Amino acid sequence: MSNDYAILLGKVRENKPLVHHITNYVTVNDCANVTLGIGASPVMADAIDEAADIAAIASSVVLNMGTLNERTIPSMIAAGKAANDKGIPVVFDPVGAGASKLRNDTAARIIGEVKLSVLRGNISEIKFVAGLQSATKGVDASESDMTDTSGAGQLAKGLADKLGCVVVISGAVDVVSDGSKIVLSKTGIPCWGTYQARDVCVHR
Amino acid sequence: MSNDYAILLGKVRENKPLVHHITNYVTVNDCANVTLGIGASPVMADAIDEAADIAAIASSVVLNMGTLNERTIPSMIAAGKAANDKGIPVVFDPVGAGASKLRNDTAARIIGEVKLSVLRGNISEIKFVAGLQSATKGVDASESDMTDTSGAGQLAKGLADKLGCVVVISGAVDVVSDGSKIVLSKTGIPCWGTYQARDVCVHR
Amino acid sequence: MSNDYAILLGKVRENKPLVHHITNYVTVNDCANVTLGIGASPVMADAIDEAADIAAIASSVVLNMGTLNERTIPSMIAAGKAANDKGIPVVFDPVGAGASKLRNDTAARIIGEVKLSVLRGNISEIKFVAGLQSATKGVDASESDMTDTSGAGQLAKGLADKLGCVVVISGAVDVVSDGSKIVLSKTGIPCWGTYQARDVCVHR
Repeated sequence: MSNDYAILLGKVRENKPLVHHITNYVTVNDCANVTLGIGASPVMADAIDEAADIAAIASSVVLNMGTLNERTIPSMIAAGKAANDKGIPVVFDPVGAGASKLRNDTAARIIGEVKLSVLRGNISEIKFVAGLQSATKGVDASESDMTDTSGAGQLAKGLADKLGCVVVISGAVDVVSDGSKIVLSKTGIPCWGTYQARDVCVHR
Repeated sequence: MSNDYAILLGKVRENKPLVHHITNYVTVNDCANVTLGIGASPVMADAIDEAADIAAIASSVVLNMGTLNERTIPSMIAAGKAANDKGIPVVFDPVGAGASKLRNDTAARIIGEVKLSVLRGNISEIKFVAGLQSATKGVDASESDMTDTSGAGQLAKGLADKLGCVVVISGAVDVVSDGSKIVLSKTGIPCWGTYQARDVCVHR
Repeated sequence: MSNDYAILLGKVRENKPLVHHITNYVTVNDCANVTLGIGASPVMADAIDEAADIAAIASSVVLNMGTLNERTIPSMIAAGKAANDKGIPVVFDPVGAGASKLRNDTAARIIGEVKLSVLRGNISEIKFVAGLQSATKGVDASESDMTDTSGAGQLAKGLADKLGCVVVISGAVDVVSDGSKIVLSKTGIPCWGTYQARDVCVHR
């Protein structure tokens, strides 16, 4: 596995893929630096007048609704659709899904209008997206959701199968599923269920 | 005092309060990390379509007008009013008050429409808010204001009494008043009168 | 030269000039800290309702179109014009020029409507601005442009002469020209042709 990872990372460094982020202004600097750190090239562009143009020349598109607003939501949809048209993978991070009507509606809209390659969230956000009862508190996973993770593997697998994408649930133990297999990654860092600049970093 | 502080900090860590920030995009990452660092949970949400909803589930609301604009000013008012309706404390940092008509008008509007628990600024900003002559230069306290701090205690006390809130004047010596007592905190760091990511950090 | 630099830096520290940035939200925190680090005073203000007011009281204005949008483009034009009216120098960084129609149009508009003192970009951006064929990839200089820098000196000189300003091309070797002289600065750091928080930092 560590050898596979080295090969994959080598390919990233060789190809320097352009990663188009429409993301929050809190962790955006970290997102850019992480992207540079793995050898890729970040571009942050959230104006409706260029979101689709930039997505169309990117190697992947990351949509993160951490500080969503009426100006950037249409840009996320436009970038996602432009990526879909070209077969460019889209990663979606439904930050704070469950915490406000705006976030709930936006998460539902993006999942409805954009075909995702990867959906990544904490346990509360993924539970919300899966239509289960959740107890999101702001942008952090709730205590109760973080303690009771017994069903996380099945949750990820079921949602991945339903959406036809990879689902990642971040936490002390990361859960990854493509709809058939479930992989657990024991990072041993519980705070990764809470607010950190890991939005662009599926592997770490 | 240091013992009281330890008890208070322990309570923060125990309760993990959600702190809703509508703040500038310059120091926002530091604000989030400081909030996490003391054991609280930050959420940054400035869209008018969710500002009141998020404020209503928060334990406190921080309004900082560092990079205010026509989109976020109504969100600050909405969040402040929603917090007031629920008895949730509101901290206001009138960054750069005195430097432009927009900042002057916005500071006046927030103070007029939102009941504050804490008003925090540098000496130039607080002088402006108090209706005194000030010489704000951008978002830093002016040299003249920083040198002549003799009246800072009375200024803080008078304004705190008038607004019915705690007033904090940041500088080499921090001045805090609730309208009756005046407390000085000799931090010995003059640059704290200038632009730093201390917006969310009343104690440090 | 190093002595001249020390004298210039001493003057900055003595005068603490106010530097008004309308810049991207990715590197904005670094821009503020670099400005503070050299002894100047940063102010970030991008609302159309204050952009001209703040520019008019600043010692210099920095326009960086890294995360441009329909709200901030008019603010950049307004700040640039207000600076021009008062003889305040304007630095322009056409981030990602060549990567989208919005960026191309905005770069052309700013250069057409605002008199610049300094134009700073990577080789791809400057080639685009000069009307030459370029291969911008997102906000990084392209491989081909970075490898073939033979004409960079003449490019900078010609464009500086045409625009009547200093042109800086950042890269492993920085190229600076005022339209008559060409100065090369061997920093030896190739990645400075790519995305870094150097937008406000002409000398380093």
